[in-house]
Amino acid sequence: MLTDGFKELLNIGIALSSVHDLDKLLDMILTEAQKLTSADSGSIYLVEGDKLIFKTSRSNTYFKRWGEKKTREIFKSFEMPITKQSIAGYVALTCQPLNIPDVQTIPQDFEFHYNPTLDKKYDYKTVSMLVIPMLNRDEKIIGVLQLINSLSGNKIVPFTDEHQKITTSFSSQAAVAIQNAKLTEDLKSAHFDTIFRLSAAAEYRDKETGNHIKRVSHYSKIIAENLGLSQQDSELIFWSSPMHDIGKLGIPDAILQKPGKLTPEERAVMEQHTVIGAMVLKDTTADVLKKSRIVALTHHEKMDGTGYPLKLKGNEIPIEGKIVALADVYDALSSKRCYKEPFSDEKVISILKEGNGNHFDEKILDVFLSSINEINTIREKYSDKEEDFDKFADFKNINILELLK
Amino acid sequence: MLTDGFKELLNIGIALSSVHDLDKLLDMILTEAQKLTSADSGSIYLVEGDKLIFKTSRSNTYFKRWGEKKTREIFKSFEMPITKQSIAGYVALTCQPLNIPDVQTIPQDFEFHYNPTLDKKYDYKTVSMLVIPMLNRDEKIIGVLQLINSLSGNKIVPFTDEHQKITTSFSSQAAVAIQNAKLTEDLKSAHFDTIFRLSAAAEYRDKETGNHIKRVSHYSKIIAENLGLSQQDSELIFWSSPMHDIGKLGIPDAILQKPGKLTPEERAVMEQHTVIGAMVLKDTTADVLKKSRIVALTHHEKMDGTGYPLKLKGNEIPIEGKIVALADVYDALSSKRCYKEPFSDEKVISILKEGNGNHFDEKILDVFLSSINEINTIREKYSDKEEDFDKFADFKNINILELLK
Repeated sequence: MLTDGFKELLNIGIALSSVHDLDKLLDMILTEAQKLTSADSGSIYLVEGDKLIFKTSRSNTYFKRWGEKKTREIFKSFEMPITKQSIAGYVALTCQPLNIPDVQTIPQDFEFHYNPTLDKKYDYKTVSMLVIPMLNRDEKIIGVLQLINSLSGNKIVPFTDEHQKITTSFSSQAAVAIQNAKLTEDLKSAHFDTIFRLSAAAEYRDKETGNHIKRVSHYSKIIAENLGLSQQDSELIFWSSPMHDIGKLGIPDAILQKPGKLTPEERAVMEQHTVIGAMVLKDTTADVLKKSRIVALTHHEKMDGTGYPLKLKGNEIPIEGKIVALADVYDALSSKRCYKEPFSDEKVISILKEGNGNHFDEKILDVFLSSINEINTIREKYSDKEEDFDKFADFKNINILELLK
Repeated sequence: MLTDGFKELLNIGIALSSVHDLDKLLDMILTEAQKLTSADSGSIYLVEGDKLIFKTSRSNTYFKRWGEKKTREIFKSFEMPITKQSIAGYVALTCQPLNIPDVQTIPQDFEFHYNPTLDKKYDYKTVSMLVIPMLNRDEKIIGVLQLINSLSGNKIVPFTDEHQKITTSFSSQAAVAIQNAKLTEDLKSAHFDTIFRLSAAAEYRDKETGNHIKRVSHYSKIIAENLGLSQQDSELIFWSSPMHDIGKLGIPDAILQKPGKLTPEERAVMEQHTVIGAMVLKDTTADVLKKSRIVALTHHEKMDGTGYPLKLKGNEIPIEGKIVALADVYDALSSKRCYKEPFSDEKVISILKEGNGNHFDEKILDVFLSSINEINTIREKYSDKEEDFDKFADFKNINILELLK
C-alpha cells in the first residue's frame, strides 16, 4: 500500500503545509505540479470575490530564455472576471477539471475559447493544457491550477489521465495550504494594524503625527537589515518600534503639552514615559511585545551613560534600543514639528555625527549613514502634510454615519 | 498508484490541516490513528521545553465504561520529564518508534520500563503498544503518539509492521498540523494580548482600572453567547469591546479628569470620545477592528434615541453597541470607583430595569439578567483591589532592571 508515489505526495503535502508565506507557497505548488506532470509551464489563479487573480507563473522555456527574474517582471499579477469564456474561468465556474490535448482543436461552438494573445506576444506555442480547480474542504473553489505542455523528451504530448488524477489529489492539499497561509497572513496583518493604530492614537496628545511612528519603524527596520540582522529579527524590530512612546499615556497633559522648557521636576516626570511603557508591556509571552518592552525602556539611553532611565553604557544597551534611539532622533531632527521647521540634511547629519560614540553606537550610525538613500525614500513616502498637524482635521469633515458601516 | 489507502491518508492530512483549534486537532489525530491501527486506546504527549505534556487520550474501553466526558475528567493533562526510563520519554529522546508486542515481556535490563500505575488504578490491561515520535520537517521532535492494544475482533494482538509504517507517515502529517495550529494560537494570543494591554494603557488617565475592560469584555461575551450568537461572533465581540473607550485618548486631562460635574460644553467634548474612537479604527480590513469601530461609536446610544453621538433609535443601534452599552453601565454601577462605592446588587438591578426599553434593548437586558450568575463569577474574578486604583503602585515598587530582561 505504501507505494513510492504515495509517500511522495504525502511528503509534498507536508512540505506545502510548512510554508506560511503565500508567494513562496504558490511558487512551490507550481514547481511540484510541473514535476508531477512534466509540464513546461504553469500558472495559478486565485479566486477573490467575483474575480480571478493571476498570481504566479513558472515556465521552463521562458526561464531559459530570460531568466526567472525577468520572466516574473513580464508576467505581473492581473485580474479578470470569472466567466465561462476563458478556460480558467470555465474551470472556476464548473469546478471540473479540463484536460485539453491541443488548444487549437477546441471546437468553435464550445463555451470557452483559448486566448492566444500571450503566446503571440511572447513567441510561445501552447498545445496541451491541464486545468484543475482547487477546492477547499467545503468544496468551495479557491483557485485554478493551469498546466501547459506536458513534455515527453522534447516532444509536447497531451496530459494523461494519471496526470489528471494525481494533480486533482495534489490540488486539494494545495488548496488547504493556501487557505492556511492566507489565514496566517490575515492574523498577522490584523495584529500589525492594531499595533500601528493604537500606537498612533497614543500619540494624539503629543506633538507627533501618525506618520512619525511609521517613519521610525521603517528607519529601524532598514538599520536592522543593513546591520546584518536576520529578516525575522528585522521584522520584529519593525513591529515593536511603533510602541516606543506608549508610556506617554501616563504623562499628564500639563507636562506633555507644555509649550516652553520643562523644569527639572517636570523633566523627571516626562522621562518616566520609558518606564511606564515597559510596565504596560511587562509579563507577556508574545515576542513582539517583549521586544517592544525593551525598546520602550531603552530608546533614550546613550552610549556614554548619560541617557535615561537606567543610565546604561555602551553594550549594556540592547541593540533594538540603540537602533530605535537613532531612528527617533533622526526623525525629530529631519521632520517639521508644529514648533519647528525640519533642519537641513547637512545640519541633521552633522548633529548625528556629533553624537557618534557618546550618544549613538558608532557601527549603527555608520550603517545608518550609508543607508541614507533608503532612509530618504521612507522620509518622502511618509512625509507630513499641513493637515497632519491638525489631529482632528478629518474629524471636522467626516460624515459620522460613514463610520457606522 | 492511487490506491484507496493512499487517498485516505491524503484526505486525513487535508482534514487535519483544516483544524486550527489545537485540542480539537489532537483529538482528531488520535481518532484517526486508532482507526488506522485498530487500537483500543491512545494518548498524545507534546514536547514543551524539557518536558513531555500529556495532552489528550481516547479509549474505547473507558468511553464505554464512563462516557467521554467523565473519562476526560479522569485523565487530566499532566507533565513529566523527558527521560529514557519512560516509554514515551525513550521515544522522544531516540526519535525512533517502539513497537512492543507485550509490555509484560519488556526485559528488566532495558533502559525503559512500562509503568503499570494507571492500569492498576483504573482496572485496564495494557498489552501491545505502538509508540511513534512526531517529527516536524526539520526532524525535530514535537510530540509522541502512543497507541495501546491493537484489536483483532475482541482479541488484543500486536501492532503490525504495516501499522507502524502507516502511523509513521501519518505522524509527520500530524506534526505539521500541530505546528500550524500552535502558530495560529500564538498569533491570536499575541494579538489579543496587544489589544488588552494597549486598551488598558489608554485607560491610565481615566478613573477606570485595567480590570474594567476585562470585565466588560467578559460580560459582553456572556451576553452574546446567551443571546444565541455564534461562537465566532461572540469571540469577536469579546475581542472588540476592550477598545470601546479608546477615543478618550483624544480628550484633554482637564475634562477627562475633572473632579466635579462637566459644563455642557465640556460634556460635548467628552462625548466626542465615541467619534474619535471610531476615527482611530476606520478604514481597516481586520474584522476585529471593524467591530471595535462600531462598538466605540455606538456604545453610548440609547434605545429611545436620547444617546450619543448619532441619537440612533432601537434597531438602528448595532447589536454589538447595545451589548457593550449594557455591560459598560452594569460595570460602572457594580464596581467601586475612586469617587464611589459599588451600589448594592438590588440597586444595580433596579437601575438597569428602569432603563428597560428606553436605555437598553429589552431582549438583551432580559438575557443579561438571566445570566447574572455567570456575570457575578466574572465580577469576582476580576474585582478591583485597593492597589488597582493607584495606577503607579507597581511602578513605585518595581526594580526597573527586571524590565530589561
